[in-house]
Amino acid sequence: LSAVDLRTHYLNYIAVLNERRFDDLRDFVADELVYNGEPMSVGQYRRLLESDVRSIPDLYFAVEQLVVEDGDVACRLRFDCTPVGRFKGFEADGSRIEFTEHVFYRFRDGYISQVWSLLDIEALQRQMAHTGELD
Amino acid sequence: LSAVDLRTHYLNYIAVLNERRFDDLRDFVADELVYNGEPMSVGQYRRLLESDVRSIPDLYFAVEQLVVEDGDVACRLRFDCTPVGRFKGFEADGSRIEFTEHVFYRFRDGYISQVWSLLDIEALQRQMAHTGELD
Repeated sequence: LSAVDLRTHYLNYIAVLNERRFDDLRDFVADELVYNGEPMSVGQYRRLLESDVRSIPDLYFAVEQLVVEDGDVACRLRFDCTPVGRFKGFEADGSRIEFTEHVFYRFRDGYISQVWSLLDIEALQRQMAHTGELD
Repeated sequence: LSAVDLRTHYLNYIAVLNERRFDDLRDFVADELVYNGEPMSVGQYRRLLESDVRSIPDLYFAVEQLVVEDGDVACRLRFDCTPVGRFKGFEADGSRIEFTEHVFYRFRDGYISQVWSLLDIEALQRQMAHTGELD
């Protein structure tokens, strides 16, 4: 995929997430990938996303900055949402929160094969109640 | 700057940081920039870096992944270092730590005009003592 095509492909992936079309993840994610250093199947990746969406039903992935070069994609995502359940070790208290994610991907033949994600944990700490456990 | 030139330029910037040639920052950083949403002068940016290096004398910026497109640079940095002073609200205890930073830059005419940085705060929490204050 050219950089232009990969950009479009990635934005289609983000649309899949925002429209909860999780059956379509297989068009974007390799059968086996590595997520923050941990091996993971596409099924596990899907369950991770489904869990996030259960905790945050109005989770919307807003692309703030997108940098594409060869098979590499880097994206700065902004979330403005209202968690209703536990998320990343924090408990929802019904309030609306804002946070960002800086995420790098490596695509192989058009499929996500590696992900490195950092969330703004300080923003979650400021806006949610901590349970005392990281998960 | 082309993507190839901007990649080289950015790696030269990283070399400036690693070699502590802070007088050369003016070749890479705009007089006025925006850092994580806050306006900042190049002098303030320099003092931020100098403060990090005082807290972590062996701070070395290792580029793990670099994505360049037009005036945008995204970099995944890894640090393997031994803090001797307070860093990001955590106290040094003499142990070696590892953490990553995911940082996005916007360059204007070859100068950094905006920076969005996220550190792996969870990694710092696991490896350093928390002072109870964020800074």
